[in-house]
Amino acid sequence: MELTSSVFDTEIMTVPGGHETIVRGGRHLFDRLPRALAGIERIGVLGWGSQGRAQARNLRDSLAGTGIAVEVGLRPGSSSEADARAHGFDVGDWLDVAGRSDLVLLLVADAALAAHHEEVFAALEPGAVIGLSHGFLLGHLEATGGRFPDGHAVVAVCPKGMGDSVRRLYEQGADTDGAGINASIAVHADPDGRATDVALGWSVALGAPYTFATTLRDEYLSDIVGERAILLGAVHGLVETLYRQFRIDGDDPVTAYERSCENVTGPIASAISDGGLTAVRDRTDPAAFDRAYAAAYGPARELVREIYDEVAAGTELRSVLLAEQRLAARPMSAIGGSEMWRHADAVHARRAAGAPPVDPLTAGFFVATMTAQVDEFAARGHAWSEIVNESVIEAVDSLLPFMHARDVAYMVDNCSRTARLGTRRWGPRFQAAYEQVALPAIGSTPDPSTVDAFLADPVHEALAAAAALRPKVDIALT
Amino acid sequence: MELTSSVFDTEIMTVPGGHETIVRGGRHLFDRLPRALAGIERIGVLGWGSQGRAQARNLRDSLAGTGIAVEVGLRPGSSSEADARAHGFDVGDWLDVAGRSDLVLLLVADAALAAHHEEVFAALEPGAVIGLSHGFLLGHLEATGGRFPDGHAVVAVCPKGMGDSVRRLYEQGADTDGAGINASIAVHADPDGRATDVALGWSVALGAPYTFATTLRDEYLSDIVGERAILLGAVHGLVETLYRQFRIDGDDPVTAYERSCENVTGPIASAISDGGLTAVRDRTDPAAFDRAYAAAYGPARELVREIYDEVAAGTELRSVLLAEQRLAARPMSAIGGSEMWRHADAVHARRAAGAPPVDPLTAGFFVATMTAQVDEFAARGHAWSEIVNESVIEAVDSLLPFMHARDVAYMVDNCSRTARLGTRRWGPRFQAAYEQVALPAIGSTPDPSTVDAFLADPVHEALAAAAALRPKVDIALT
Repeated sequence: MELTSSVFDTEIMTVPGGHETIVRGGRHLFDRLPRALAGIERIGVLGWGSQGRAQARNLRDSLAGTGIAVEVGLRPGSSSEADARAHGFDVGDWLDVAGRSDLVLLLVADAALAAHHEEVFAALEPGAVIGLSHGFLLGHLEATGGRFPDGHAVVAVCPKGMGDSVRRLYEQGADTDGAGINASIAVHADPDGRATDVALGWSVALGAPYTFATTLRDEYLSDIVGERAILLGAVHGLVETLYRQFRIDGDDPVTAYERSCENVTGPIASAISDGGLTAVRDRTDPAAFDRAYAAAYGPARELVREIYDEVAAGTELRSVLLAEQRLAARPMSAIGGSEMWRHADAVHARRAAGAPPVDPLTAGFFVATMTAQVDEFAARGHAWSEIVNESVIEAVDSLLPFMHARDVAYMVDNCSRTARLGTRRWGPRFQAAYEQVALPAIGSTPDPSTVDAFLADPVHEALAAAAALRPKVDIALT
Repeated sequence: MELTSSVFDTEIMTVPGGHETIVRGGRHLFDRLPRALAGIERIGVLGWGSQGRAQARNLRDSLAGTGIAVEVGLRPGSSSEADARAHGFDVGDWLDVAGRSDLVLLLVADAALAAHHEEVFAALEPGAVIGLSHGFLLGHLEATGGRFPDGHAVVAVCPKGMGDSVRRLYEQGADTDGAGINASIAVHADPDGRATDVALGWSVALGAPYTFATTLRDEYLSDIVGERAILLGAVHGLVETLYRQFRIDGDDPVTAYERSCENVTGPIASAISDGGLTAVRDRTDPAAFDRAYAAAYGPARELVREIYDEVAAGTELRSVLLAEQRLAARPMSAIGGSEMWRHADAVHARRAAGAPPVDPLTAGFFVATMTAQVDEFAARGHAWSEIVNESVIEAVDSLLPFMHARDVAYMVDNCSRTARLGTRRWGPRFQAAYEQVALPAIGSTPDPSTVDAFLADPVHEALAAAAALRPKVDIALT
């Protein structure tokens, strides 16, 4: 997609089969922020979840000295108020803050957004810009027959990482110019022509190394599908599968944990972050990797396709809304209860001895699932920047390091409710696909064309192009 | 619900909290069939799947000598034509048969019904009665904005067992009057007042020991939910879970299979068929059963509730339609591939030595899930006959014996596509609930109120009332 800006320099990024226009970020551009945000005197950040906290802090730091104020708006009685004040923010009622801000960032929980977006819309002052950080609200409006209010620009800036990483890598950016989390922007409504520069200014202020363009619908689809597949759901299903399989094959609990969960969040994520998808294969037994890859690619692709269909048709979001109604009466079930998680501390304690070797079965299944998501997104026409950021970079540079420091179940339960519900819905489906289809196929001779297609996949070129746009970051988190 | 008939005698059946009106069946009533089916000279059975084959044969045998003809209608090129002819039926093109029948039974596959119901409706002669054997078409019409044609009675007779059992127990009925599969009837449209007696005649002719009344919507809900839960989906998820757990705990494959799958389809199903739900507890260690029951009831109930919400809201059926579109291009994935199924023959070979003892963990999980479905259906206001037939009797007297003779995966893949897809969607969810919530809770002290509620559950009274309405049947199948 094309991007044009009168404030920031655009660059052509060569991707498989064409090019995209992107904007590189960096602290040296912060002096252009007042121009990009012309007309905006107050930014209201509604919500103090993972994204709200990170974005409010990054925006305040990046806009220091410009006179543009950042205020936090919370719902009455919010338990986050003390923390927001402890971080030095003015905190007001969210509708009041919405009513006095020129750029209103809707970073509240999806459920709150679903229930209260009309009140927020009604509170806006004329011409205020509506800002989103993912496409959920568009999906919700489509599912319920609602719409965005006329006369307001609607833009999205969507960091391709969790809020924790958005802040942490921004702080790294103080020493390493360009460190940060990439972001997509989408201009959904632009009544006065300012929207693209507002979105780019917001993205640069968050510390995005590079910003690429998408549509709100494409962002919605890739975001909701991605978290159900390789970002969260598939990871959970994969480690539950492989831990049990290794146990049945005779491993003690700690070894089984190291070969499954620890492998994915540790050496496999590092290898991909360092050298792309084929680097994982190079660090283990390639023949065993290939057998695992060939066995898992088909069922994983089938499942990503199903998830995509469900999200695109709106059934997935309607199911989330039904779940929200049930959750009003009872808490969400735990997913961290199974045997493996009781051994996390013992595994973590062994980390001082170095990372375990890459397990070829775990690596083959994981990379096959990641590539399945990449290929499905490409088949559905997503931009390559969106594909690699939503399928690979967000995983290895944001979510997996966080899971490595905590654990998968903890990570899942610190994401949005939409993501948590999606993981509960689809993680077990991936587990069943691995157990019932992929593992039984390991013994048969793999179809060489599946591995050949992996080695020739255009994703490698796209990942290399994206990697060239930012410095190496330190993904470790303790 | 009330039932009134000018042909058959109704009886009052006392159920928890009230009564239902039912009609008892039996061969001695076959001489009333011409009166019940007055005006019907030709019955067209569209489809030769499990239900079509069984119902066509039972109807022909029960109507022998009445002059009412039974003809089979198939789609052009149907691979079933030779088998239908080998069973001595006249076979015609399904639209031709629909056009010359006075009662048209739509027993084709759900996908065919979804795609072609309008053609069938258009082919009907004025006043022909539309007959269904489950509520799928109602759900489909609701999901797609369609409707039944005016001027036609729409009735459903829904045997609470698979077609194989409908035929097999009917044949037992030659020696044991009243053996058969219970059925519900629903009168959805009744332009001339004949519909109830037509439905009752059809049900008695199929050999239903007793017939109870429901609505097409209640039948649709309980049917689609039930097959996703205790009838198929939960069974599959349960045995996948427990087999692996027993393997991890040190059992060899054959023992693990016997303690999980073999236990459910063998001694647990027999115990319930013989003596109701508490009979299972009496045949094993009650304290261990209670711990398992208490651990599994909560997560199982939560999942049945979720399935019910999804079916009632229409999202489940929309997902099935999306899956049907994908299946046009590629086959359904296999679910019988995981390790346990490779040991089925070895387990079956040991049957001559007698059934294995009831495993208290397997029994507790299974009965908890069955009771969870019962309680959820009761909470949603279903009739007790529908609840116990759709949750207990259909399981232990039809599906589980079939699974015991074949295996669970074979059974699943011989059901309707809607059921097969549902099992693939929800079986893994049950597995995750057992693995992540129920198994970890086994170690903690159970809440005694959960077991107390089980022992006092009104289902026991309802099951006893239903059992009194038919003779003991021999559920064994080889």
